[in-house]
Amino acid sequence: MTANQSDNTKPLRIALAGVGTVGVGVIKLLDTNADLVTARAGRPIEIVAVSARNKGRDRGVDLSPYAWEDDMTALAARGDVDVVVELVGGSDGPALALARNAIAAGKSLVTANKAMIAHHGQALAAAAEDKGAALKFEAAVAGGIPIVKGLREGAAANSIERIYGILNGTANYILSTMEHSGADFGATLKDAQELGYAEADPTFDIEGVDAAHKLSILAAISFGAQIDFDAVDCEGISSVRAADITQADALGYVIRLIGMADVEATAGESPALLQQVKPCLVPKGHPLAHTTGATNAVVAEGNFSGRLFFQGAGAGDGPTASAVVADIIDIARGETGSPFSIPTAQLVPMTRAVSDNRTGQAYLRFTVTDKPGVLAEITAAMRDADVSIESLIQQGRANDGGEVLVALVTHDGPEGNISKAVELLKGSESLTAPPLIMRILSE
Amino acid sequence: MTANQSDNTKPLRIALAGVGTVGVGVIKLLDTNADLVTARAGRPIEIVAVSARNKGRDRGVDLSPYAWEDDMTALAARGDVDVVVELVGGSDGPALALARNAIAAGKSLVTANKAMIAHHGQALAAAAEDKGAALKFEAAVAGGIPIVKGLREGAAANSIERIYGILNGTANYILSTMEHSGADFGATLKDAQELGYAEADPTFDIEGVDAAHKLSILAAISFGAQIDFDAVDCEGISSVRAADITQADALGYVIRLIGMADVEATAGESPALLQQVKPCLVPKGHPLAHTTGATNAVVAEGNFSGRLFFQGAGAGDGPTASAVVADIIDIARGETGSPFSIPTAQLVPMTRAVSDNRTGQAYLRFTVTDKPGVLAEITAAMRDADVSIESLIQQGRANDGGEVLVALVTHDGPEGNISKAVELLKGSESLTAPPLIMRILSE
Repeated sequence: MTANQSDNTKPLRIALAGVGTVGVGVIKLLDTNADLVTARAGRPIEIVAVSARNKGRDRGVDLSPYAWEDDMTALAARGDVDVVVELVGGSDGPALALARNAIAAGKSLVTANKAMIAHHGQALAAAAEDKGAALKFEAAVAGGIPIVKGLREGAAANSIERIYGILNGTANYILSTMEHSGADFGATLKDAQELGYAEADPTFDIEGVDAAHKLSILAAISFGAQIDFDAVDCEGISSVRAADITQADALGYVIRLIGMADVEATAGESPALLQQVKPCLVPKGHPLAHTTGATNAVVAEGNFSGRLFFQGAGAGDGPTASAVVADIIDIARGETGSPFSIPTAQLVPMTRAVSDNRTGQAYLRFTVTDKPGVLAEITAAMRDADVSIESLIQQGRANDGGEVLVALVTHDGPEGNISKAVELLKGSESLTAPPLIMRILSE
Repeated sequence: MTANQSDNTKPLRIALAGVGTVGVGVIKLLDTNADLVTARAGRPIEIVAVSARNKGRDRGVDLSPYAWEDDMTALAARGDVDVVVELVGGSDGPALALARNAIAAGKSLVTANKAMIAHHGQALAAAAEDKGAALKFEAAVAGGIPIVKGLREGAAANSIERIYGILNGTANYILSTMEHSGADFGATLKDAQELGYAEADPTFDIEGVDAAHKLSILAAISFGAQIDFDAVDCEGISSVRAADITQADALGYVIRLIGMADVEATAGESPALLQQVKPCLVPKGHPLAHTTGATNAVVAEGNFSGRLFFQGAGAGDGPTASAVVADIIDIARGETGSPFSIPTAQLVPMTRAVSDNRTGQAYLRFTVTDKPGVLAEITAAMRDADVSIESLIQQGRANDGGEVLVALVTHDGPEGNISKAVELLKGSESLTAPPLIMRILSE
């Protein structure tokens, strides 16, 4: 047994910052599952103090057993707290101040805050290591799925060749709903908002920013790379139309918002990290194609393990609380190693990979005016950019705006050529909107 | 940091018992991924000694850097070994002797031996805890999938309501091959043997024994139950015919060999553990239906996490080595807690649950003689046992033996009634073989 485990039979004392749905979930979990959590942690886990914006609000749980702090940062200074659980959110501001102060005071920090970890995780990890404190963020990536642990420990023996998956439940809900209903993006988003699957301001979810936060965290753990959120090449799903989903279906694919990262190692050069969040065509035989609704899923390809697939609820109070308390149990057991698997000082800076040389198939969809010569113009651009076309579909009927869709699937070829073709078509009077380009995921 | 982590910057010294395909995989992994394993483990991992039956055999790896022991048990006595890795196999015999001796000598044990853990895991765990040594067996369940860690740590905050999955790659390979080829069981098994997917004596795989070993381990971790391999209700796939797969397909299902465990808690009574390995009908929309070939997959349903799904290679040198080395890295990091998540002394003895009161839908298939009155006899038995029939399919044409298949799907109802119906039909001259009964997994 480790020193922590044998020494500590005393309760592990928790402070909770933020008592929204997830915070309430944590309180309920620690109450409902108290006995088994104690048995698995090796000692009781006790909430001693809480802080939130509104003390009086009815949350359906009794907060009176816990000390209350109006100023959340005061939780970091309490002598009776071992672990601060940050459930406030926001990459900076009060959450970051609390995290910094808690770690500076030698306390361990558990957080569900993907934006904060994506932006400041590396500095916080270095500070935590310096203090011998734990920094844990299982709940920050893919909700209840133990993917941080899966990569950091479960797949620890592997060189990860590629990590990719469905990292945003709202976007996946919208895409898979469009698949079944045939409705367009706008209407589906509106429904999702009414049903509570999308927020009033859905930007972070539908534009891929939330997925990019998570991807940058997974990439750091997978590749031993310094976190580089700003280098994520990010594109959302708002340009995906019902017609694209229909076309994809006819070709044997579904459309998913995929976050993907891998490393290009070229002899003599520093490694280059590719990080992309983009809507992709996924073959129906691929496990990600069967990931529907608000579910998340991650594929990790290890050089010895082969493909590992993890799937589960990507959000929600129960799943997120499950991940938060798993981290707390780890700390109670004495598991306080490097947050990103290797010591933070050893994380390697990587350049941003250019995807131009990547080869693969792609789906291109153009919205064009309904007039002669348009197809010739598009196919000529493809030819001139050396893009080989596997199939081309023109949706015959113009819609109310006199607009016609032309979709094509390319043969395997460099992505750079596609960019070149699109560049050649820029400014064309035939195109009524920028084309939508989606990579086709290999089986 | 724990004492182990901060104290130990010295190499962790390994002895390898068994240098077959998996042992060679471990040697290759530790060589290929040496730098990243050292970084993630916090210190180098060094093989110092090996033992196997045949010293001279060419394994494609150089064993000369390591001390050689003719007697495997001698590895446990070596003063220069911290961790013994047992890759010999067999529930008893040399593997068990080595495991006992290693732990008695205060060494940690890592094993891929599901039979040994299913039969002796609890005693070994108690001994390891007593000595402050680690006992780890990630590779014993579902190959490269980190499911032991996923349950023991990732889902640690949850009361697990049910654990189930595809735990044998050979059986799954055979069933999913039958699905695509339309061939019968015997021919498919023969092909699988020729291709190396099934062993010369495939009994443990096709009769569900191997899956039962794994299930009993997962059940102990999930439910805090004492391991009870003998209580697994076990049925193999050799009775499954091509016609069953065709019928299932027409009804919207595939057939999979499913290991499943859950706990029935009745107030005032000791909890009852249900453990079953049986071929089941799986709805095509369920993630287990998309688990094909030699792949394994496990579903854990937690009371807060909801459904967690893990999928990956169930066997093979690379995936198994990945799991073995993940355990070694854990030990290097100082993670040496209770093997079954809670202290072994706290594992609860559970009675064997009777499934008669379970309700659900079932698929029944009768092989009958081609004569009048057979259907009336079967349906009368169903009526008399209070089994409600949703659909009934008679395969019209008799085969060479004058045998006809009658398949039916029941409405939701108690399993006990089905047993009763089958009992009523026992001894009937119309039936040419015992009926095949398969549960239908709910979505």
